[in-house]
Amino acid sequence: MKRTIDLNCDLGESFGAWRMGDDDAVMPYISSANIACGYHAGDPDTMRRTVALALRAKVAIGAHVSLPDLAGFGRREMRVSADEAHAMTLYQVGALAAFARAAGTRLAHVKPHGALYNMAARDAALADAIARAVHAFDPALRLVGLAGSELPSAGERAGLAVAHEAFADRRYEAGGSLVSRREADAVIHDVDAAVAQALALARGEAITARSGVPLCVRADTICVHGDRADAGTFAHRLHAALLGAGIAIANPASGRIA
Amino acid sequence: MKRTIDLNCDLGESFGAWRMGDDDAVMPYISSANIACGYHAGDPDTMRRTVALALRAKVAIGAHVSLPDLAGFGRREMRVSADEAHAMTLYQVGALAAFARAAGTRLAHVKPHGALYNMAARDAALADAIARAVHAFDPALRLVGLAGSELPSAGERAGLAVAHEAFADRRYEAGGSLVSRREADAVIHDVDAAVAQALALARGEAITARSGVPLCVRADTICVHGDRADAGTFAHRLHAALLGAGIAIANPASGRIA
Amino acid sequence: MKRTIDLNCDLGESFGAWRMGDDDAVMPYISSANIACGYHAGDPDTMRRTVALALRAKVAIGAHVSLPDLAGFGRREMRVSADEAHAMTLYQVGALAAFARAAGTRLAHVKPHGALYNMAARDAALADAIARAVHAFDPALRLVGLAGSELPSAGERAGLAVAHEAFADRRYEAGGSLVSRREADAVIHDVDAAVAQALALARGEAITARSGVPLCVRADTICVHGDRADAGTFAHRLHAALLGAGIAIANPASGRIA
Amino acid sequence: MKRTIDLNCDLGESFGAWRMGDDDAVMPYISSANIACGYHAGDPDTMRRTVALALRAKVAIGAHVSLPDLAGFGRREMRVSADEAHAMTLYQVGALAAFARAAGTRLAHVKPHGALYNMAARDAALADAIARAVHAFDPALRLVGLAGSELPSAGERAGLAVAHEAFADRRYEAGGSLVSRREADAVIHDVDAAVAQALALARGEAITARSGVPLCVRADTICVHGDRADAGTFAHRLHAALLGAGIAIANPASGRIA
Repeated sequence: MKRTIDLNCDLGESFGAWRMGDDDAVMPYISSANIACGYHAGDPDTMRRTVALALRAKVAIGAHVSLPDLAGFGRREMRVSADEAHAMTLYQVGALAAFARAAGTRLAHVKPHGALYNMAARDAALADAIARAVHAFDPALRLVGLAGSELPSAGERAGLAVAHEAFADRRYEAGGSLVSRREADAVIHDVDAAVAQALALARGEAITARSGVPLCVRADTICVHGDRADAGTFAHRLHAALLGAGIAIANPASGRIA
Repeated sequence: MKRTIDLNCDLGESFGAWRMGDDDAVMPYISSANIACGYHAGDPDTMRRTVALALRAKVAIGAHVSLPDLAGFGRREMRVSADEAHAMTLYQVGALAAFARAAGTRLAHVKPHGALYNMAARDAALADAIARAVHAFDPALRLVGLAGSELPSAGERAGLAVAHEAFADRRYEAGGSLVSRREADAVIHDVDAAVAQALALARGEAITARSGVPLCVRADTICVHGDRADAGTFAHRLHAALLGAGIAIANPASGRIA
Repeated sequence: MKRTIDLNCDLGESFGAWRMGDDDAVMPYISSANIACGYHAGDPDTMRRTVALALRAKVAIGAHVSLPDLAGFGRREMRVSADEAHAMTLYQVGALAAFARAAGTRLAHVKPHGALYNMAARDAALADAIARAVHAFDPALRLVGLAGSELPSAGERAGLAVAHEAFADRRYEAGGSLVSRREADAVIHDVDAAVAQALALARGEAITARSGVPLCVRADTICVHGDRADAGTFAHRLHAALLGAGIAIANPASGRIA
Repeated sequence: MKRTIDLNCDLGESFGAWRMGDDDAVMPYISSANIACGYHAGDPDTMRRTVALALRAKVAIGAHVSLPDLAGFGRREMRVSADEAHAMTLYQVGALAAFARAAGTRLAHVKPHGALYNMAARDAALADAIARAVHAFDPALRLVGLAGSELPSAGERAGLAVAHEAFADRRYEAGGSLVSRREADAVIHDVDAAVAQALALARGEAITARSGVPLCVRADTICVHGDRADAGTFAHRLHAALLGAGIAIANPASGRIA
């Protein structure tokens, strides 16, 4: 049986007059789009257009839910209660689902963004609140979270399908956590090295942690950062390398797309 | 056949630490709740609680969609494009629908709020944009708008069921428009007079316009203002008077509730 | 020399159509008003009216600066950088100062609100950022913070006059910190007990900590909570008790006011 | 006596993670910077950095006050009351003034942005509210508005110095108003033609209106659009052409700068 990997990217992160990312350039090379829902980015018109773009490209559509913080782009941790996290997840998933529904399709997954992603990776109660909200909206949605963290565990507890997410261009600590962005070597800027890491992740092979030791990271889906200056080129390179290695790029929901 | 009228009220208009209205006091006496969706009021947790309150009271749940203006409570007209109105309607309807879905129910109607309500009453293009968004989300939703205005017409053009709305405690001009709130006699403060007007509306009888002439206003649904200081008492009085006159209070979607 | 104490209260916490607190009832009994600046509450028109109210009552005006979180009323901790805290302090202090200037007066003090207050009490770097912003705007402003905490220390490092704040109706741990609001006995609901604690604080006498041991808390200013249901009555009682004990109620900036 | 003209540009229009404009490229060629104050763009940190950039370039700093509409970039008209316009002007001018003060300088002017600019050009009551707010904050501030419109008139009524603004790259109707942006020929895209129009404006010569007739437009200050893709180049070209024609580029407040 042929190996398959999901490639996901955070998209729809423009807001009003402000542009971010190059969604058109990335979309042909991915299988899952995480679309901003208005809390860290994504005004309603941007949401509508991004859903249409993903649909045309046959890319699975997911809600990229965030803490409410436009000025901080959802990257500043906020001490929200489990009830607040539950309610803000429902709100955002519902809002994006409306655009999918109006376009004749439906959501495939939910992935928390930025600070909420990091908080849900380590806080089981918060992760449970998010997972329960997703399940209450639609038990067929997949919950995407940091590989091996609290969020996929919470998804399983809630009865959801989950996807463990790994990163092509982020370096890992030996323990499996991501090197903090405050460290100089957090991001793998070299495209060849990032592509190599993605190939290893997709094949289920060990990657090399920051300390030099080999590390196994479960990767149901690999994130392509849409805010790299070279996001389109990078996604293209990754896509070509995976296909060249005989690995299909597909979303579990939509079936093989490449 | 017994006469039936729908009584609706704008609810869920608290926001964060701020309270507004007395939803618990009004809910027993109405058949339709228009719930704020975050644009003029209604944080996610308030939306969740208001949906639960309506569900327990067997009151039909509708989205009270607004222009994005918390500081102005959605009461300041904004020149939005038809595309923007379409997208912001989908966004808000979807967000509220998620709470309904998580609670095991679904939306019955959509009613624009405040300035958007007034703009959609006189601007056919804007009304069409809102109606098309509602239809794209769910063609089974009813669209509620000012009786005889552009909004119910747009709803019919879009293929939606519509409800012409009349007001118990607002005075009408002879031409059928509402007396502007800038006028001293815009609101009928006297409860007996407002109840009498509601009874006439529910019976399909003429009411008395500001100038003293009789006026016929179509009333599929009558609005009970939730921001009156005496909203609970007023709703109770209205409810008792209608039942006493042999008129059932019911939402077309949910069937007779009283 | 007669004893003097400053009584401060958080005011101007309405927002748009939403009302909070009873500013008119409290204003006659206090010497310092901490006025919300739009980040947790306080739209521009509310700021203008609250400044006018304080000015008429000869109450010193201060900026009640907050994290940007209307939905959470500034009560949810957010991980902001020192640079962000510096900039948001300047922004809010400047905005409120404009209303003071237009009214022919000027600000006397700055006090962080809610989560920012708590964070600045324990985080020296954050406290320094706030203190430097206040000093950069006007070195004559007093900085108000939790008695004995990092914030007054930072104020002194920045060259500002500071006020150590104590609470009439909050219970203290033996170590001098406030009992967390998550604990049942965090607030002293009994008015007599709260007034007694305020008298002890104003006289420089020990109060009784939660564990029963005596505790000395420095109190340059005592906070009257404006969000108590009985805020006006409570402020009146406190005012009367202090005057009855021969203690003047005054703001250091404005001189004795009672 | 040498001819002098002020060149102004709208700057500081980034917000959080979103970038807009190329402030560094434009700043060397202008004499006045209109800096966003948080209502349509401009988070506090962007305000701080833009003030510092202008100060280094010896460019006069002004507040670019807007309607509260981040998603619409302040370009959607909102029906605000005169009191609301007064209060939101004070709020924004005060906020920006704080950054100027912390940097050791002060504001020179105030210019409304976008929809507020257009509304204040034709609505005398709104223009008066803005002018009175500016005067209440600092009677030494200059008020900048559309040449010949209600705003400069209101400024004069309020006792302020005013600047009539003209546009290098916008076409005019024969009556002196700007061709609406909804028209195809609203913007003069050709750089040579825009520079020629600016030269005529600076010399007090007639320009050619859309209909072909000559038109005199008073120009105390000429706006360089910062959102042109070629804003830096265009500003450089304009700067060189004016200097080449023996016209000094200076802000009335700061004296001749080039």
